[in-house]
Amino acid sequence: MAGNSFGQLFRITTFGESHGGAVGCVVDGCPPHIAITEEEIQKELDRRKPGQSALTSPRKEADRIHILSGVFEGKTTGTPILLLAHNEDMRPEDYDHLKHLYRPSHADFTYEAKYGIRDPRGSGRASARETLARVAAGAVAQKFLRENLGIEIVSYVEQVGDIVSTSDMNAVTRADVERNIIRCPDERAAKNMIALVEKVREEGDSVGGVIRGVIRGVPKGLGEPVFDKLSADLGKAMLSINAVKGFDIGSGFGGVGMKGSEHNDPFMAKGKTVRTATNYAGGTIGGISSGETIYFRVAFKPVSTIRKKQQTVTKQGVATELEATGRHDPCVLPRAVPIVDAMSALVIMDHYLRHRAQNGS
Amino acid sequence: MAGNSFGQLFRITTFGESHGGAVGCVVDGCPPHIAITEEEIQKELDRRKPGQSALTSPRKEADRIHILSGVFEGKTTGTPILLLAHNEDMRPEDYDHLKHLYRPSHADFTYEAKYGIRDPRGSGRASARETLARVAAGAVAQKFLRENLGIEIVSYVEQVGDIVSTSDMNAVTRADVERNIIRCPDERAAKNMIALVEKVREEGDSVGGVIRGVIRGVPKGLGEPVFDKLSADLGKAMLSINAVKGFDIGSGFGGVGMKGSEHNDPFMAKGKTVRTATNYAGGTIGGISSGETIYFRVAFKPVSTIRKKQQTVTKQGVATELEATGRHDPCVLPRAVPIVDAMSALVIMDHYLRHRAQNGS
Amino acid sequence: MAGNSFGQLFRITTFGESHGGAVGCVVDGCPPHIAITEEEIQKELDRRKPGQSALTSPRKEADRIHILSGVFEGKTTGTPILLLAHNEDMRPEDYDHLKHLYRPSHADFTYEAKYGIRDPRGSGRASARETLARVAAGAVAQKFLRENLGIEIVSYVEQVGDIVSTSDMNAVTRADVERNIIRCPDERAAKNMIALVEKVREEGDSVGGVIRGVIRGVPKGLGEPVFDKLSADLGKAMLSINAVKGFDIGSGFGGVGMKGSEHNDPFMAKGKTVRTATNYAGGTIGGISSGETIYFRVAFKPVSTIRKKQQTVTKQGVATELEATGRHDPCVLPRAVPIVDAMSALVIMDHYLRHRAQNGS
Amino acid sequence: MAGNSFGQLFRITTFGESHGGAVGCVVDGCPPHIAITEEEIQKELDRRKPGQSALTSPRKEADRIHILSGVFEGKTTGTPILLLAHNEDMRPEDYDHLKHLYRPSHADFTYEAKYGIRDPRGSGRASARETLARVAAGAVAQKFLRENLGIEIVSYVEQVGDIVSTSDMNAVTRADVERNIIRCPDERAAKNMIALVEKVREEGDSVGGVIRGVIRGVPKGLGEPVFDKLSADLGKAMLSINAVKGFDIGSGFGGVGMKGSEHNDPFMAKGKTVRTATNYAGGTIGGISSGETIYFRVAFKPVSTIRKKQQTVTKQGVATELEATGRHDPCVLPRAVPIVDAMSALVIMDHYLRHRAQNGS
Repeated sequence: MAGNSFGQLFRITTFGESHGGAVGCVVDGCPPHIAITEEEIQKELDRRKPGQSALTSPRKEADRIHILSGVFEGKTTGTPILLLAHNEDMRPEDYDHLKHLYRPSHADFTYEAKYGIRDPRGSGRASARETLARVAAGAVAQKFLRENLGIEIVSYVEQVGDIVSTSDMNAVTRADVERNIIRCPDERAAKNMIALVEKVREEGDSVGGVIRGVIRGVPKGLGEPVFDKLSADLGKAMLSINAVKGFDIGSGFGGVGMKGSEHNDPFMAKGKTVRTATNYAGGTIGGISSGETIYFRVAFKPVSTIRKKQQTVTKQGVATELEATGRHDPCVLPRAVPIVDAMSALVIMDHYLRHRAQNGS
Repeated sequence: MAGNSFGQLFRITTFGESHGGAVGCVVDGCPPHIAITEEEIQKELDRRKPGQSALTSPRKEADRIHILSGVFEGKTTGTPILLLAHNEDMRPEDYDHLKHLYRPSHADFTYEAKYGIRDPRGSGRASARETLARVAAGAVAQKFLRENLGIEIVSYVEQVGDIVSTSDMNAVTRADVERNIIRCPDERAAKNMIALVEKVREEGDSVGGVIRGVIRGVPKGLGEPVFDKLSADLGKAMLSINAVKGFDIGSGFGGVGMKGSEHNDPFMAKGKTVRTATNYAGGTIGGISSGETIYFRVAFKPVSTIRKKQQTVTKQGVATELEATGRHDPCVLPRAVPIVDAMSALVIMDHYLRHRAQNGS
Repeated sequence: MAGNSFGQLFRITTFGESHGGAVGCVVDGCPPHIAITEEEIQKELDRRKPGQSALTSPRKEADRIHILSGVFEGKTTGTPILLLAHNEDMRPEDYDHLKHLYRPSHADFTYEAKYGIRDPRGSGRASARETLARVAAGAVAQKFLRENLGIEIVSYVEQVGDIVSTSDMNAVTRADVERNIIRCPDERAAKNMIALVEKVREEGDSVGGVIRGVIRGVPKGLGEPVFDKLSADLGKAMLSINAVKGFDIGSGFGGVGMKGSEHNDPFMAKGKTVRTATNYAGGTIGGISSGETIYFRVAFKPVSTIRKKQQTVTKQGVATELEATGRHDPCVLPRAVPIVDAMSALVIMDHYLRHRAQNGS
Repeated sequence: MAGNSFGQLFRITTFGESHGGAVGCVVDGCPPHIAITEEEIQKELDRRKPGQSALTSPRKEADRIHILSGVFEGKTTGTPILLLAHNEDMRPEDYDHLKHLYRPSHADFTYEAKYGIRDPRGSGRASARETLARVAAGAVAQKFLRENLGIEIVSYVEQVGDIVSTSDMNAVTRADVERNIIRCPDERAAKNMIALVEKVREEGDSVGGVIRGVIRGVPKGLGEPVFDKLSADLGKAMLSINAVKGFDIGSGFGGVGMKGSEHNDPFMAKGKTVRTATNYAGGTIGGISSGETIYFRVAFKPVSTIRKKQQTVTKQGVATELEATGRHDPCVLPRAVPIVDAMSALVIMDHYLRHRAQNGS
């Protein structure tokens, strides 16, 4: 109810602030018999960790993941899995200057409005560090989906600022994505993106972009008809990531100008299965997977933490200036790719279990 | 779990197919002492009903709403409210020709994949008629929000096909929206939109568009920090509406090209309250309401039901042609405006109760 | 959240007060392909309806059940099932004298404390009429469990006042239970129970008792290990029935005086399966079904509505006397037997779907 | 869904097996501004830990609790609280002989039936060690309830084997309970109970008993009318504790022989409030708190772990004998008292927040 859980049957409950103890999650409802190790999870976490490349914040985080329950002799047992990473200890005085003012477009102000109290260290619970738990749980789900259902999840950076990739989303592989530090499979666009991010960093500023999510091999019939449409749950999953301001699936915002006769995807027989000739729907019809590739876009605003001087007010409402020092990510997108992968996996996994409950297999 | 409920504390559970019995919902968790009548609910329903104007399907539906529990002497009692409208009886043979084929971009195919059985009459559960329940429940929520918190919800058609309104969303009133049959407050754009819809109808085709949602007066502090961000729950609410393929909030997809220094909304004192000078955030920061106006866009694809001849296959996978007769909406947007209003109200109402649970008031 | 839903995956949401509209429920998450008719449901309802015998209230209720959604051509479709019975209309003045005082041990007082408003007609939502919805939904679950899993649910009256049946619970059949109007398979005890109830009725008083619940053929492995133990969910289900004050399973309260060496049920091989030699556990070990018969007891207090004169106070706290006229059940147990059957079915059904979600079959 | 969460709004999710990592829970939905320290939680945990007296298992457990998130400068912040205790490391070979057989009345058999895999070390997830998390979370709830609402929770041992205490439950204080190692406030009965437990231990056996739960000062109006009656949720909470086989509230099983005219609790004015002259109801009417003291009984079977030789079978179904060595609790009741306190607190806390959501305060 307090918004720290995601999923109905494959359900994660995350915890932890940026500093002072630990971050992680409990995965409840995980099927037994999934072979999983800390190393496999760590591999996914390393894709989101800071300091992994010249583009990301050089900050070092104690991202070492521990499996503290629910796995016995390398296999899940069906009981809750605790995934946990300890935080590094911070000297609290480092955050003293942030206690008394509201950083523009940060959640300082709204947390205080909500709770009347907040942990000011490293943005507390609003820290991007919270996504570590999502990626860790997503690694378990990805393992299951890949090995049991042959599902392939490949997200990548499609746009940074005004630079747009022209990659064919149907051809992109995970290896293509990992080929460069911006995680854009279009090498030419990637170069320009990297240059843009470096320029923005030098200016002490930040820049936004778009991640493309692609999920291949989802069996038809997943998703619930009315409120919990697969498309709606994917949308919520993505919109719950820090800095995300938009989501569209299939033709999305681009399809509003089309006619029905252009946009409708004709059914056709392909061997013994029924397929659609086009896929403007983006892999779900009426909110239920059609067996075609699911694809969507996720819009990220430029991150709020910048080095440039900004106007703001103190808690007492007195105008003041904020000039951030320290390290930050000028563009969050490369590190957000594994988060989009993870959230995709969590949604598909949950709907797979829901389908299995009601329909038996 | 099967996707027919929405909301955690102000929770609606909808039921009903297009034909054969009734559609409606149970509203559970509604606060007591809300004065509400069938007439007030009916008024909202009349905005979504077919046949209301030359633009919409001339089909007549038995949209007469009944309150069958939870209200005593004109006031909610805190117990579940059953809102129900009977369906008109159909001769089942009318749908015989649809039993054996899959209409393109309709949920016939995916329902059958999911359940192995489906009610073919009027699209069954996938019918847009299901939204009647949302609008009815939303009317109760809107009443509470307006009278207790002074919240104002005003959605309108911003785009049809390529025609875009230039209305100032901060000035639009519900009366402005109701001034024309396309529900676009920009009179010039409205005329062009109406002409376009009429042309499309004559062609036996359909066209998509964008609805702008605006929510004014939401107190700061609503929304949960991590997964159940107000923005994420609004996104899910909208993406759960039939034909919706995209959602963005605040700067949305348009903001990805901005720099952080442009996009950050500076805080400033305004009398005794803290406000932001700009509102690129769209009224939520870190997923929690900031007290500024919440605004977002909802992208609708062109509806699937068209009169034009289409290619498809039968259940046996044999290629066939479909030529729909009968009546349909060439553009669903005018009738979707009250649905967007309703879903907005359901989300805000739910988060208001959640806030009250944890924070006491 | 407001307590009108039961079950996680086979989830019912009930609605309706005693008078003025309708009572019933939405069943969400029901598997598709269950053959079910209004007649089958009605048959179960007739076991709980008033006026069925000389022992029960002669009051007549419009208990005619309607299936208004979720069933097509006699089979469930996987979409929400609306089960509804209309209420008879009452003249509101009939309840005027109850508006202003609190009937002893009725929920008038606590409803008013909770909501500050209540529907005084026929106890409103606290009416036993609410259980109609449970029995209707339970009939669907019983059909599935019987036909798909061979599960047999047989509850019966074991005790009325101080008269205790000595039937062997392992031998009792549904036909045995239906053989007399008190629903006690021990004919000798039944006669005494009936005589007692008749005497109590003449005195204008009421009497309590115990229902024995028996569930045979539950596959091993159902139930969740920690909080949602099968035993705990059965307990909650029974304790949620009006007038129930106690529940025990297996050896129950009688087992507290035993030694572990007596109470432990030894495992033994029986053909290819493992069984227990005794069954003090009552069919669940660690909250999970063992494959042995599940059995439990449900304690009902004497119902609150009596004809005898009673002391109470008005809403203003002024002492007054209450002398009920009209009809009431002197002993609720015979009519509660189908409710215990229904709640048993709802719990087992829900856990079966939960098991299927996590474990695949 | 997988049964590791309890509560709707004050929601705990527990994790952890007996050995190998950690046990604990995430508390989600906790109100902000509760002052809480590890020491306060530890104090409650020390009441349940093994080795605390001559009566309990001399086993030593690493029960040191850590607060790893959700608390800042000694106060809850409204974000999830991670409460965690590390497990001591075990040599896996210690459990090798338990891998291949089913201990009578232990969950070995049912876990394996459910998941097809289990962690055999120290009963894995079925270990009583799991209750550590409940007590820790309950300490937070108790703090809130005591300080904000003046609620007092006092459970105690009422019966061991056939020895029954005659304490007046309305007079018992927490100090009275802590006065002896069996946690029975009736000194004479306590002595006999202790002697009985010592005798049973010498025999290598175990014995059951009854805990009385008492909750004073609950405001009227808490609890939901239909399924989530306060009485039903208390029942479920208690029945979810290991070894519990029965629960009754108010007159309970003892009340079934009473007449309605005896059992009904007359209302009367007491100063400005309305009270009941008697309290057979046990503090809830229609499932909602009446303002009177809530009291109930919890029946514990004799624990399954005994030293006496027992018959059982191996996983292959071969008959074998089990003779446990090592240490065990001959009577679990003294250590279960703080668990009953904790579960009581969790239920009341949750319903308090639910009431606040729907009714505003």
